[in-house]
Amino acid sequence: MKITDVRITPVAVPDVPVLNVKGVHQPVFLRSIIEIDTDGGLTGLSETYGARRTLDGLRRAADALVGLDPFDLNGLARRVDAALPDAGGINAPTALADHKLIDVVYGAFEVALLDIQGKHLSRPVCDLLGGTLRDSIPFAGYLFFKFAKPAEQPGADLFGEVMTPDALVAQARRFVADHGFRSLKLKGGVLEPAQEVETMRKLQAAFPGLPLRIDPMGAWAPETAIALAQDLDGVLEYLEDPAPGMDGMAQVAARSPVPLATNLVVTELPHVFEAHRKGAVQIVLNDHHYWRGMTGAVRLGHVCGAAGMGVAMHSNSHLGISMAAMLHVAACTPGQTYDCDTHYPWVRDEVIAGGKFAFRDGRIPVPRGPGLGVKIDPDALARLAALYREQGVRDRDDTDEIRKYLPDFERRIPRW
Amino acid sequence: MKITDVRITPVAVPDVPVLNVKGVHQPVFLRSIIEIDTDGGLTGLSETYGARRTLDGLRRAADALVGLDPFDLNGLARRVDAALPDAGGINAPTALADHKLIDVVYGAFEVALLDIQGKHLSRPVCDLLGGTLRDSIPFAGYLFFKFAKPAEQPGADLFGEVMTPDALVAQARRFVADHGFRSLKLKGGVLEPAQEVETMRKLQAAFPGLPLRIDPMGAWAPETAIALAQDLDGVLEYLEDPAPGMDGMAQVAARSPVPLATNLVVTELPHVFEAHRKGAVQIVLNDHHYWRGMTGAVRLGHVCGAAGMGVAMHSNSHLGISMAAMLHVAACTPGQTYDCDTHYPWVRDEVIAGGKFAFRDGRIPVPRGPGLGVKIDPDALARLAALYREQGVRDRDDTDEIRKYLPDFERRIPRW
Repeated sequence: MKITDVRITPVAVPDVPVLNVKGVHQPVFLRSIIEIDTDGGLTGLSETYGARRTLDGLRRAADALVGLDPFDLNGLARRVDAALPDAGGINAPTALADHKLIDVVYGAFEVALLDIQGKHLSRPVCDLLGGTLRDSIPFAGYLFFKFAKPAEQPGADLFGEVMTPDALVAQARRFVADHGFRSLKLKGGVLEPAQEVETMRKLQAAFPGLPLRIDPMGAWAPETAIALAQDLDGVLEYLEDPAPGMDGMAQVAARSPVPLATNLVVTELPHVFEAHRKGAVQIVLNDHHYWRGMTGAVRLGHVCGAAGMGVAMHSNSHLGISMAAMLHVAACTPGQTYDCDTHYPWVRDEVIAGGKFAFRDGRIPVPRGPGLGVKIDPDALARLAALYREQGVRDRDDTDEIRKYLPDFERRIPRW
Repeated sequence: MKITDVRITPVAVPDVPVLNVKGVHQPVFLRSIIEIDTDGGLTGLSETYGARRTLDGLRRAADALVGLDPFDLNGLARRVDAALPDAGGINAPTALADHKLIDVVYGAFEVALLDIQGKHLSRPVCDLLGGTLRDSIPFAGYLFFKFAKPAEQPGADLFGEVMTPDALVAQARRFVADHGFRSLKLKGGVLEPAQEVETMRKLQAAFPGLPLRIDPMGAWAPETAIALAQDLDGVLEYLEDPAPGMDGMAQVAARSPVPLATNLVVTELPHVFEAHRKGAVQIVLNDHHYWRGMTGAVRLGHVCGAAGMGVAMHSNSHLGISMAAMLHVAACTPGQTYDCDTHYPWVRDEVIAGGKFAFRDGRIPVPRGPGLGVKIDPDALARLAALYREQGVRDRDDTDEIRKYLPDFERRIPRW
């Protein structure tokens, strides 16, 4: 079996103006939809980031895949390495975490190859990742402060403006009512720290017993973060990326009564060793999009277990192909005992046939169909690809976007 | 596809009295040959240790495998965990390294399940481990000081007595001539350190340019090991387990100009973190028999790469089924850039059909047949199983054995 063609379709998906320390989401988020054909007639699917640098990397490596055996993942790695000799980070200068392009491109193609393998075997991808440890995956309700969506932006709004603790709790009530989430995560780093602490306390009062998390994305200086962590003892399940940098995290961890999680300072395996040595992190957020695909994400679970760290799951805005891959990864990753993050409930559109995955009691069953267990809806793909062409957005820049609302916004990390 | 039966056959294989710090090899070495049948008619093969504690663990877990899908490796782990709730080390009290029984039993069965998976797919096992990074595997010639084999022991002798540097060099010449090895390893810890240094220097003179290693199995106290390491600078590719214990190794590593390797102080993933933190080890010897099977061994390569450590391969006395698994592992393990160890040239017998694998230029090609690529020779298996029943040996004890030659032998680690 050989790969005969690789198709990469950038799409734009209507988004809502949710906030974080860097700024606000743009009117659309970008994804790349990947279809890989084989001479046997099987097609593998994948989905990853859609901004320019990723898209360019995918396109530069795509031709090199023709002729590859879809079981030869090490061969994929070699070909991607050779195609991207200059591959550095994908996000600079706008992000804190700078995932290596080469890991993102490898991971994106690996998902499609595993989809092909599963279809070839008539088995779900999780069977190729060692078999399921759990058959349905619990997610945390992902809460955001947000602006009301300007009328000229495409797509529906959710909730209008949410800029106070009470409005945030109302958002949480609706999310829990609609999807049944049994844990909640707030994207913090937006309001003054005291208001975010108040928000977490109000969430605790409104949802007694539900595990709660806050992720200020490095918005707090270490001393601030230590004080807030101590203040939030007994409120939080974990505190995600309170302060920027490995050493900042280590400084907070030394005096925080709450476990620290990260998707910013641990993004490659060597960082797990550094974090272990420095005692900087208790929980690593996994994400097959940059942890070198599904095999890399499952491997991270083993490695974190050996380091005495727990595993949760990171999310960016995504569609159903990524959701399917996330479900298979979460099903097979040892130590993945924390509910997964996902932006999925914020997204009304879809590229997979049959419409969106539905949450029940905050969970989604692991797909049992062959491969990833999802198919593309060609009309939906065409519609979102057209939106990509029509919209001018080609890169993600939350800071530039927020200046349309707040012209004087100054990006500072840490901010407080 | 479901597992219907698990057969475990202990075998005894004639061995030669080669020496190490603990004593001498017994007249036979013991292995367990594993055959796992499925309802689809496929049978998977494996081979592991044959001493009582392993054999007992395999037998206690075997029944629990019936009904398992051979792709469900996580299910295998769960069943082995449940069957062996009291599983500790397999070797105590005779060994330095005390591999966990649960890891050994899981690993033994995993090899057979991967063999079934490969046969089901009509693909070699390496295709299920990510595809080959190399198509033929280089081995080091494994040199031993030895006694002449007593006439009453079964099987042929090799070389007669080898108890001087010159006799060891003669052994090396024959090994290199017969098998083409391009690197050499001496099992040290047997003669006075000065004589072993002399041996290494004579090997260097006899085989200029060939990478050389010595493994005294923790025979040297840290101060002794540091002096010997400094003495052997420029002679050795690496120095394996010069001193006992993680902290002893760290003490040596801090002052050794030669990289240190180990199969004794790093035997589970958490040890990689400890070794990294303490700077104790530069190279880890991999071995699917105790690193949780072939997937665990490949994973170790990724982890060592992240820790900045190299990977070599450990060996015990073994037959062709283990050799096939070692070849697939070495083919797919990133960072496995050192020649592998193997006792295989010391073994005249075989259980696989078609006879023994042959070395050419010190290398063996990775089998391309489905699964592991080997079949059992039923007559050979019956013969070695009969030898097991006839021989009284049920456990490995090199120290007890050497007292038949040297009644006053005292086991001391470190010795010098």
